[in-house]
Amino acid sequence: MKAFASDNYSGIHPEILDAIHNANSSHAISYGDDTLTTETNSLFEKHFGPVKVLYTFNGTGANVVALKCATLPFQSVICTQYAHIHVDECGAPVQAIGCTLVPIATEDGKLNPGLIKPYLSAKGNVHHNQPRVISISQSTELGTVYSLEELKILCDFAHANDMFVHLDGARISNAVAALDVSLKEATVDCGVDIMSFGGTKNGMMIGEAVLIFNKELQQHADYFHKQSAQLFSKNRFIAAQFKALLSNNLWKRMATHANKMARLLAEEVSKIEGVQITRSTDANGVFAIIPEHAIVPLQEKFRFYVWDESTLELRWMCSFDTTEEEVRHFTATLQQLIKKHH
Amino acid sequence: MKAFASDNYSGIHPEILDAIHNANSSHAISYGDDTLTTETNSLFEKHFGPVKVLYTFNGTGANVVALKCATLPFQSVICTQYAHIHVDECGAPVQAIGCTLVPIATEDGKLNPGLIKPYLSAKGNVHHNQPRVISISQSTELGTVYSLEELKILCDFAHANDMFVHLDGARISNAVAALDVSLKEATVDCGVDIMSFGGTKNGMMIGEAVLIFNKELQQHADYFHKQSAQLFSKNRFIAAQFKALLSNNLWKRMATHANKMARLLAEEVSKIEGVQITRSTDANGVFAIIPEHAIVPLQEKFRFYVWDESTLELRWMCSFDTTEEEVRHFTATLQQLIKKHH
Amino acid sequence: MKAFASDNYSGIHPEILDAIHNANSSHAISYGDDTLTTETNSLFEKHFGPVKVLYTFNGTGANVVALKCATLPFQSVICTQYAHIHVDECGAPVQAIGCTLVPIATEDGKLNPGLIKPYLSAKGNVHHNQPRVISISQSTELGTVYSLEELKILCDFAHANDMFVHLDGARISNAVAALDVSLKEATVDCGVDIMSFGGTKNGMMIGEAVLIFNKELQQHADYFHKQSAQLFSKNRFIAAQFKALLSNNLWKRMATHANKMARLLAEEVSKIEGVQITRSTDANGVFAIIPEHAIVPLQEKFRFYVWDESTLELRWMCSFDTTEEEVRHFTATLQQLIKKHH
Amino acid sequence: MKAFASDNYSGIHPEILDAIHNANSSHAISYGDDTLTTETNSLFEKHFGPVKVLYTFNGTGANVVALKCATLPFQSVICTQYAHIHVDECGAPVQAIGCTLVPIATEDGKLNPGLIKPYLSAKGNVHHNQPRVISISQSTELGTVYSLEELKILCDFAHANDMFVHLDGARISNAVAALDVSLKEATVDCGVDIMSFGGTKNGMMIGEAVLIFNKELQQHADYFHKQSAQLFSKNRFIAAQFKALLSNNLWKRMATHANKMARLLAEEVSKIEGVQITRSTDANGVFAIIPEHAIVPLQEKFRFYVWDESTLELRWMCSFDTTEEEVRHFTATLQQLIKKHH
Repeated sequence: MKAFASDNYSGIHPEILDAIHNANSSHAISYGDDTLTTETNSLFEKHFGPVKVLYTFNGTGANVVALKCATLPFQSVICTQYAHIHVDECGAPVQAIGCTLVPIATEDGKLNPGLIKPYLSAKGNVHHNQPRVISISQSTELGTVYSLEELKILCDFAHANDMFVHLDGARISNAVAALDVSLKEATVDCGVDIMSFGGTKNGMMIGEAVLIFNKELQQHADYFHKQSAQLFSKNRFIAAQFKALLSNNLWKRMATHANKMARLLAEEVSKIEGVQITRSTDANGVFAIIPEHAIVPLQEKFRFYVWDESTLELRWMCSFDTTEEEVRHFTATLQQLIKKHH
Repeated sequence: MKAFASDNYSGIHPEILDAIHNANSSHAISYGDDTLTTETNSLFEKHFGPVKVLYTFNGTGANVVALKCATLPFQSVICTQYAHIHVDECGAPVQAIGCTLVPIATEDGKLNPGLIKPYLSAKGNVHHNQPRVISISQSTELGTVYSLEELKILCDFAHANDMFVHLDGARISNAVAALDVSLKEATVDCGVDIMSFGGTKNGMMIGEAVLIFNKELQQHADYFHKQSAQLFSKNRFIAAQFKALLSNNLWKRMATHANKMARLLAEEVSKIEGVQITRSTDANGVFAIIPEHAIVPLQEKFRFYVWDESTLELRWMCSFDTTEEEVRHFTATLQQLIKKHH
Repeated sequence: MKAFASDNYSGIHPEILDAIHNANSSHAISYGDDTLTTETNSLFEKHFGPVKVLYTFNGTGANVVALKCATLPFQSVICTQYAHIHVDECGAPVQAIGCTLVPIATEDGKLNPGLIKPYLSAKGNVHHNQPRVISISQSTELGTVYSLEELKILCDFAHANDMFVHLDGARISNAVAALDVSLKEATVDCGVDIMSFGGTKNGMMIGEAVLIFNKELQQHADYFHKQSAQLFSKNRFIAAQFKALLSNNLWKRMATHANKMARLLAEEVSKIEGVQITRSTDANGVFAIIPEHAIVPLQEKFRFYVWDESTLELRWMCSFDTTEEEVRHFTATLQQLIKKHH
Repeated sequence: MKAFASDNYSGIHPEILDAIHNANSSHAISYGDDTLTTETNSLFEKHFGPVKVLYTFNGTGANVVALKCATLPFQSVICTQYAHIHVDECGAPVQAIGCTLVPIATEDGKLNPGLIKPYLSAKGNVHHNQPRVISISQSTELGTVYSLEELKILCDFAHANDMFVHLDGARISNAVAALDVSLKEATVDCGVDIMSFGGTKNGMMIGEAVLIFNKELQQHADYFHKQSAQLFSKNRFIAAQFKALLSNNLWKRMATHANKMARLLAEEVSKIEGVQITRSTDANGVFAIIPEHAIVPLQEKFRFYVWDESTLELRWMCSFDTTEEEVRHFTATLQQLIKKHH
């Protein structure tokens, strides 16, 4: 049974698995000095323009490496209270760097200059951590998507205040598919300095990439990469997956489908009495409140998480392999559970 | 063309690749709470007895997580001057823990109580790092293998001095195949407290495992695992590989073959005048000195590394997919290069 | 001109300076193995009961050492948004340990179980930092003082949830003088596990002490102390100061005086129209809002800090050497500045 | 009874204690923004030329702050096997930075380009820590002193290889007094980039200073200083001591005397049959081997340390307050102990 728990419950897209197969021929130079990695680097440049690419194993690894490139121990990283780096990585970036994360309360999972400004008074005062990075998630942990305009304003603000912008793109494909622009337009063209580009949640077996656009942050990147235990000896097997992902629009086909399923899900459940959609369904996540009695029975049939224990807000994620049939089955089950109770 | 540079140049064994395929069905709970991971944990227990298993992405990650479980920042890890953790991980364990590594000079890549004793005078003196872990590599970076007796003596010595033994088993399968005992007899039965169990260099696409035998070291292990960015969301795809590796003796079949190829290589090249085998070929690595003029031309045909720049000692590694034909081709080429020069 | 900026603007109490003098005779064993340190340790035990004492140079050093004794990198320290460890130490504890600080919003600078409970849902979930320490300041950064009852409830709550209580006692003497109980009654008897005992802000030239009551936290303390660069070779010169401080009630005489001056200051300025006391003056700090036009002219005569740039709330600190005359001069000056403007 | 154990057994020079007294007038701005600190900064500039000064509490603190300014976590610091930062600080610099120390075997406690060169092959290879700092001690832990020529050659070598030179100057005054040049000639003029300037072992009560000559290393220094818990609120009391030390040649008067006592001690004991001076007595430390039976009885009268447990080499340190009478008493006692045995 498919789950709506997380897009990381999903499997491997057949085109990705084929790519792994095809990469498995004879020997290849290790640690990324192989031809498949070189080809994939070029493909990233085709999509993003000039960029330094570091392949990593998982999202936490990508975020740690990216933030290491941008942050010294006495500096701080500004993020939202919902940020994966703050909430879901057991403090990995803080432990790896020694810096402090500054989580800011936000309604919609997005940051903006107004929210950040009050924290800049610490600047230049030796007693306080020095704000250095603004880290945003796109799409956000609340399923919302920054517009290009919002991104540009935030990046301009960061640069005007001598800060960098890190984008946690565990679900960047879903965001860019939703915005319907190119990967470049949605990231480096807005001013993003460094980003984590997600693969695992969008049909890959394993792999993320740190994309470093800002040359200043590239300087020591290879060493931070290696020392963070994120440099892969048989890197061709991650590169091959990214090559498939970035070819034939696969990244966008999968993300668009996941987004479509989420919108369908949101539309269908919102027709059910007693169900309330709580967030804007911009990408592939649906947030909702349903009658409390229905939660556990529904979880028994379709695994998913309670997002907020205090409000019992639920989160349902769709992925590249979620089918319309499954969405309709889910919706019907929910409807039945609610009806039965009346 | 196959290389003799490293066993991490090799690809994926077909049985492993099949296992990845078969794991790719529908959804599975993330972060190791899936059934494949549970089954693989049981398989590890079948081979090793009671053990806590943490899956990691690479060897550096495994070593970092293992040493974190055993070491506080003011403590030190005793290893050899050749130890991968000391030489080849860009200081990852030191950076991750804040501890100090104490590299000890050794002829054959092995530690013994006599070599370690002088360093124990630091014990109890607040001005010095406190020796806490003896970390050994099995097989060693010099291609040698500790005997069971040597392991037992070292582990007893460690425990008598309130220290733990960590075994870096990036090539443990090669060592155990060479010893021709069970995995359990060669590790936990000798007194090893915690180990990194290698997969990548023995036919897997990706994956290592930290095996924690000593309950004292299990206490916080899950948190160190997660905080080190080594917990995989789609863990079933690493577990599946280990399941295949630990089934039908695959780990041993592959390791035995690689060892056999190394012995063949050592035997054949030692017949060539001017070639000197410099280390005991206990596992899958051959160390040799050849006429200097032959090095570069040989490297142009078969990639390999100069192990020691000062002595021009070379290292040739064999892997599960090295063929007898390749070994003979290599030997013949070397012979020809040397002859031509005379 | 005396300042009301901070109690660390003050000098050395004559009895303390005499103690330094008297300690300066011939040679003494270094690193705390001297007789003066032994005597001072006994004096701490006389005041607090069984305790392990570590002398440190400053408050940040004391807090870092204390938190190191209680916290592993994947754990978290719960404190208030105003906590010195969070706001004023440039992230020293975070950098030194790798842990995360969890700052909680509070009205009066105090924590209580109700404020902390929501954060305990992270417990046992490997994705989140694990709450391990509750760190409170006594007196608080807002000049308030926990009652013994409040302390006991908080300590019981901590222990019931497998957490420790750290007390940042940079101004513990002021708090205990205000409570008019013994040092022991106000700390270890309430359940405090470990504390930083302040000297510098209460008449000493230099020196703080980490007092470890909980035996579990004493285990590695000497090594954390040394590795944190807080072990002093000529420790007799810090011990001598503490010996004087803890003799003849000097700690209490000074703190009581500072508190009295603060109360006087609060009473007198509150009589001035347009001046509003914003916090309870429990110890030696007075918080107030005055007409904006008077701030800078007043600062030109008596140095002090604007506590909150957004509300223009001011902080005035009194110290052991603040005189009644100075308080009255300050009050009169403020009154004059306000009048002149009307 | 005076000891020959360490120069940190000594007390406070009267001129220094007077300076503390005189600094104790009324209030002063905290954290080094006071006039005494400003004056002392100028005095440092008078002695050394343009320099950024950070005051610290102890030598370990100074070394940690200095190395933080120069080293990233993936880099390494090259030192000798005897270096205080390697042997005697419980791993403080490693823990604080995450970098690796590379201890090099040396006969006389000094480094030179020939000893360092082999370690530079790591440069540019992502698998290895990157050599970044050469850290030397002047005078060395073996009581020897680098000549100006040796220093210049080493600094030139460092800079030619894109490295910095850190000088651990816990006993820099003894070295400079021995060289009989100016402080500037012996440090920055030779090419030293950053140094720890010792006060505690040369007559101060407490205090060391980090002197940063290289502007590149000054950039973040204030933050590293604060985050390392080495910024003192009542800094005037350390600054005042340095002001006295750097005035009226006090630093040199004390160091010259200590050196003279060491030379006298070496001369006198070397006349005793069975006593062998083992190191060049360049500064204030004497290393010797004496008949084993005499060690403990001598220690009972004059405290000192066995430097090397394996050879029973002893170390005797002289300090500013060692008297000729004490040296002669020590020598006579040793002679008597040896005679008695025959």
